[in-house]
Amino acid sequence: MPSGKILVAQGGGPTAVINQSMVGVVMEARRFSQVERIYGAIHGVRGIVNEDFVDLTHETQHNLEQVANTPSSALGSTRDKPDLAYCQDIFKVLKAHEIEHFFYIGGNDSSDTVRIVSEQAQAASYPLCCIHVPKTIDNDLVGSDHTPGFPSAARFVALAFAGANLDNVALPGVYVAVVMGRHAGFLTAASALGKKFPDDGPHLIYLPERTFVLDKFLLDVKTIYERYGRCVVAVSEGIHDASGIPMASLLAKDLEHDDHGNVQLSGNGALADLLCQEIKTRLNIKRVRGDTFGYLQRSFMGCVSDVDQREAREVGEKAVQFALWGKQSGSVAIKRVGSYSVDYELLPLQAVAGKTRVMEDAFISESGTDVTDAFRLYLRPLLGSGMPDAYRLRNNPVAKVLKR
Amino acid sequence: MPSGKILVAQGGGPTAVINQSMVGVVMEARRFSQVERIYGAIHGVRGIVNEDFVDLTHETQHNLEQVANTPSSALGSTRDKPDLAYCQDIFKVLKAHEIEHFFYIGGNDSSDTVRIVSEQAQAASYPLCCIHVPKTIDNDLVGSDHTPGFPSAARFVALAFAGANLDNVALPGVYVAVVMGRHAGFLTAASALGKKFPDDGPHLIYLPERTFVLDKFLLDVKTIYERYGRCVVAVSEGIHDASGIPMASLLAKDLEHDDHGNVQLSGNGALADLLCQEIKTRLNIKRVRGDTFGYLQRSFMGCVSDVDQREAREVGEKAVQFALWGKQSGSVAIKRVGSYSVDYELLPLQAVAGKTRVMEDAFISESGTDVTDAFRLYLRPLLGSGMPDAYRLRNNPVAKVLKR
Repeated sequence: MPSGKILVAQGGGPTAVINQSMVGVVMEARRFSQVERIYGAIHGVRGIVNEDFVDLTHETQHNLEQVANTPSSALGSTRDKPDLAYCQDIFKVLKAHEIEHFFYIGGNDSSDTVRIVSEQAQAASYPLCCIHVPKTIDNDLVGSDHTPGFPSAARFVALAFAGANLDNVALPGVYVAVVMGRHAGFLTAASALGKKFPDDGPHLIYLPERTFVLDKFLLDVKTIYERYGRCVVAVSEGIHDASGIPMASLLAKDLEHDDHGNVQLSGNGALADLLCQEIKTRLNIKRVRGDTFGYLQRSFMGCVSDVDQREAREVGEKAVQFALWGKQSGSVAIKRVGSYSVDYELLPLQAVAGKTRVMEDAFISESGTDVTDAFRLYLRPLLGSGMPDAYRLRNNPVAKVLKR
Repeated sequence: MPSGKILVAQGGGPTAVINQSMVGVVMEARRFSQVERIYGAIHGVRGIVNEDFVDLTHETQHNLEQVANTPSSALGSTRDKPDLAYCQDIFKVLKAHEIEHFFYIGGNDSSDTVRIVSEQAQAASYPLCCIHVPKTIDNDLVGSDHTPGFPSAARFVALAFAGANLDNVALPGVYVAVVMGRHAGFLTAASALGKKFPDDGPHLIYLPERTFVLDKFLLDVKTIYERYGRCVVAVSEGIHDASGIPMASLLAKDLEHDDHGNVQLSGNGALADLLCQEIKTRLNIKRVRGDTFGYLQRSFMGCVSDVDQREAREVGEKAVQFALWGKQSGSVAIKRVGSYSVDYELLPLQAVAGKTRVMEDAFISESGTDVTDAFRLYLRPLLGSGMPDAYRLRNNPVAKVLKR
């Protein structure tokens, strides 16, 4: 006898639109008469093992719509990466609460959790339908054209660089900004969409898909600085040397010869500061500034792509439709079917779980420090409508009188 | 014989609306039949001494409007702080080009330059009208209710903290973000406008108007962390100890016992990282994250207060009116005359030049780590329309079944 209870949870790093997917699940589930109760787990899988549930069945339509437009994970999130025993605990709780549909909104780690829980249910012959609902600003899920959350973060990064470039034109120097994305360079590459004029920055883009060589980097910066009298650089937090060691730890070792060298790789400004230090010291450039976009790029209020909002809502809706009409487990994926239009499909959990997508070679220029037009065409429609645009005064020089 | 030539220039750190003021000057000046030529100096006062001018007389209305909506200084800026000899050079160039109206858009340093140039002209009996047009995200000009540029930067900071707070709710820990503002705490205090619910962050706000005591800071963070299981902190880049020494240099000294301690105080993430390090080490809290808003807060595209846009345009317009109708030098100031409405007046240059306003005591809570309702009332109308709002799911807990 089906219980008609569904559970939704959110895992991993928040995004600007993850609540759209949660609300998509809740709203769509309320349209099915066989759904009696809609639970939300507080702080993802940790909330499940602790039986920390809220009943969303009676939440108002109005408040759900407002929460959908609010960034970050309204149900709370977790960084727990469940092992087999943890997944068995999850399954026990789901069974005890007679939950037969489980929707987990998250990235690759979350999809792997969904896969293991689903396998546990199958092994126990318990009728549990498990759906992974995609979200990640890193855009690193395989099988999807792109992932909800990435377009809004990409919009933030593109606009941040458009502004930083204008600032750098006004007060020239070298500007280095570090962008999130772990092993995937998509979000860093989005900085290229902030360019309008040929001499605009970012002039150099360093992606984790290419090996980072410090001497080459310094030479690149020097070349641009000599050409334009300024240089704007986008750097992925995931850049690494040929052996895969993150640059942040390598540079920290180079610079700090005492015992205080335990530099954290994210959630701080170390990588930007260390690169700036190298530029100052070795290129002898005076005005060098570093920013780390940090948490702003995933949770800033008021910088969201309307395309991203709509799609994030739809993956939640489609998740429920796949589960309740199709009665099968899987991972919802976005498929591009037009320029620009998308459709949704349900992939087997095994096809997505724990796998990492990185930027395709076709998206990276031969120099390795720029993107291709293919990438620009890929990303542009995702950024949504109403992108602000940068304008310049036209040059009309006045003849000198004193001519000193 | 009046030449009918005017010159406009932009100095100091760019803002999101400084081009509104420049365009306000240009557009308004074109309405006066006696104005023959409108020049812009490239890179502020440096452009003047180098005779690096562009003619804006024939720029299109359309492009001027688009440039007005573009952040940062379209004419370029400079960090040069002219001394007397430099100001004499400026005056020589203005005289050589028969410029009789000089409009300089900038902060306190710029106003002081305007004052000296004006005095040089008077001493030489040259009929030069010099107007300082206010701009600074620091909001530290005396005699003005507030300064153009501050409202948009404040909107960015408020929205950044609203988002960072939501992120911190989802993944609890300590979050420290460092905000610009030099010796004035207004911009850091704007973080308080990101709060909606009583337990929202920022829970603690550290302003340069109060002495920073590290042990007190750590105790404050500990208290909040024990109460809410998380803590969001706003810190001004200008915090200092009782003797006025910036905390960034003090902490760097504490932490780094080798010779590599020449830590830069702005344009890097050092202060946030050093404070996070102290929290981690001394309070033994695991998840501690630091952000430095850096250049995003003054040049991010697409986060602008419409009130700020309008006022920045108007100070440019009024500057021209004061100059061409009143024929007197001075500094344009914003006066609040209603809730919310403003008027503009021309203050003597001596009343503004080189002076620094800091936050009034009435704006800072007794604890020293929060703002008062007076500040909230002061700032709210400046942030403009369409401020996004954060919503929460209503709590409706589900009874536990396993009760482990």
